[in-house]
Amino acid sequence: MNKFWSEMVNRTEPYVPGEQLNDPDIIKLNTNENPYPPSPRVKEAIVEELDGKLRLYPSPTADGLRLAIADTYDVSPDEVFVGNGSDEVLAFSFMAFFHPDKPIRFPNITYSFYPVYAKLFNIPYEIVRVNGDFTLPAESFFGSEGGVIMPNPNAPTSLYMELSSIETILVNNPDRVVIIDEAYIDFATASAVELVRLYENLLVIQTTSKSRSLAGMRVGYAIGHPDLIEALVRIKDSFNSYTVDRLAIAGATAAFKDREYFNSTVLKITATRNRLIHTLKEMGFHVLPSQANFVFAKHTDKAAAEIYVELKNAGILVRHFNQPEIDNYLRISVGTDEQMDSLLRKLEQLLAVDSHI
Amino acid sequence: MNKFWSEMVNRTEPYVPGEQLNDPDIIKLNTNENPYPPSPRVKEAIVEELDGKLRLYPSPTADGLRLAIADTYDVSPDEVFVGNGSDEVLAFSFMAFFHPDKPIRFPNITYSFYPVYAKLFNIPYEIVRVNGDFTLPAESFFGSEGGVIMPNPNAPTSLYMELSSIETILVNNPDRVVIIDEAYIDFATASAVELVRLYENLLVIQTTSKSRSLAGMRVGYAIGHPDLIEALVRIKDSFNSYTVDRLAIAGATAAFKDREYFNSTVLKITATRNRLIHTLKEMGFHVLPSQANFVFAKHTDKAAAEIYVELKNAGILVRHFNQPEIDNYLRISVGTDEQMDSLLRKLEQLLAVDSHI
Repeated sequence: MNKFWSEMVNRTEPYVPGEQLNDPDIIKLNTNENPYPPSPRVKEAIVEELDGKLRLYPSPTADGLRLAIADTYDVSPDEVFVGNGSDEVLAFSFMAFFHPDKPIRFPNITYSFYPVYAKLFNIPYEIVRVNGDFTLPAESFFGSEGGVIMPNPNAPTSLYMELSSIETILVNNPDRVVIIDEAYIDFATASAVELVRLYENLLVIQTTSKSRSLAGMRVGYAIGHPDLIEALVRIKDSFNSYTVDRLAIAGATAAFKDREYFNSTVLKITATRNRLIHTLKEMGFHVLPSQANFVFAKHTDKAAAEIYVELKNAGILVRHFNQPEIDNYLRISVGTDEQMDSLLRKLEQLLAVDSHI
Repeated sequence: MNKFWSEMVNRTEPYVPGEQLNDPDIIKLNTNENPYPPSPRVKEAIVEELDGKLRLYPSPTADGLRLAIADTYDVSPDEVFVGNGSDEVLAFSFMAFFHPDKPIRFPNITYSFYPVYAKLFNIPYEIVRVNGDFTLPAESFFGSEGGVIMPNPNAPTSLYMELSSIETILVNNPDRVVIIDEAYIDFATASAVELVRLYENLLVIQTTSKSRSLAGMRVGYAIGHPDLIEALVRIKDSFNSYTVDRLAIAGATAAFKDREYFNSTVLKITATRNRLIHTLKEMGFHVLPSQANFVFAKHTDKAAAEIYVELKNAGILVRHFNQPEIDNYLRISVGTDEQMDSLLRKLEQLLAVDSHI
């Protein structure tokens, strides 16, 4: 608290940064980054854009990128908004669609930023408890006063909600915006984008940070009815006219255009994930049926906190949440097959040592 | 107005985008971009960062870049905040330091985004009228209820306020933040950064878009007391943890480190500016004493709106503000010597034709 700070600052809490280990030999499975680089066309497009253009402002509307996204999802460019990472798109969405006097709803186990945005913008919220198996009870989101936001697949549980259930939530919130945060959707059954034409209250938010390997570039986007997109554009234009820089626009556009590379990368990761789940189960882990590029697992005998520390000491970083109900689980990003082999070998050692005690 | 829009969206106004002419032969003197490319080291640094790192999240604190800025200005990294362009830094500052019940003050002729941010965040404001010669009356900013924001040099007037006057504003607002928005400061006498150690209520905001030729990359920054920086960090961390991407961090860091290139570019532009002012005056223009990389000028005989249109028809784009008190002025960015020669030749023709009528 400081005499110069606004009420808004006083509503924030100091951020506890995630672990950043600088050792290049570490196997980093804690932030769900893609283990594969982006399409080689991304680098080509960026190098081309470097020539003589950095001194000029980017396109404030990022038309080329919005067109590439629209083509990918078979929507129109005026149904697409792009921003500086999906976190910015989420923050703009809280500003654009939620109200300081009407509580919104999101799950108790979910993306940790939702309550942070809500506090920042003074938006009240109601927590919907997940079921015993971590699935989401769709009916608990019906008739929300202020709107709904949820990830699908959910994080950190990795669980997917069927589109038919999402439709019931949309139908039962006809006057409120329902935001489906699809950061991990490319590793799952199907995107809610196909519902955008049917429900004017649906906003789907995605990112290039996971399936398109561009976490370092900060490009997120929203797809929805043009009236919802217009609201985001108006917030953006009152906040920062040029949120996505030239190289990000060029790189992300190339990433969307190289569908073959995208498909092959997603296929590799889902194959590795399914092998990982299978082997973890054989080793005595309970693993949720993941539709993301990470798995959420607990071991029958050994505490997650212990496994986390022992893996870290062995140079393998996974994510452990010190939070009720999930503190015996580990979230493990799906890496390359080689990284998964190292992980599984190390786990085998840790668990074998234990079983000998 | 739409049933899904928040009050915040309803407070915004649709943005009227600036002119974007795609003709590569156009001489673009309307957005104060730098006519010279960034340091060659910027490209090298970006190409190096491209190798194998795009798939990984950037540093949320952009430590290397903050250190390079701190070294440049002889401050400590905890006195530096970086953001996605100075517009984002300005928006975060409105969130962090201004209050919905206390009016802030800024000039009537100034950066057009201040009233936009104020409306978005519901912050009341009082307008300080510039003097007849467009200089700012420092004493009119004394004792503000909510804080002060002004550009120095001011835009679009190009006029510089001496640091001694800025000090009187700081002294006379001891409990409120005074933001000096120095987008154009590298073309002027001296930055207020040297006052940061003396005044805990001073926040200086700068950009790499002008003097460092990185408009396409979106990197802005603030320098101030660590308590002010902490407020910006807390807003940022509640809004978007990673606002500056990897290539922007790498490129901007290289730009700050290449001081020789920076100095030579600034020197070229100020020399060209002074020559431009001299010749415009010879041609019958009244030109304000610019300390920016643009000039603000009106002709004795010919209306600015006419000159603007005739220049545009001749492939030269300058800025005309259709706004009381300045609607007979043109804002002209300082380009290369060759671009200025083309501009001056064309102006000579336009004015000669007129004098023959």
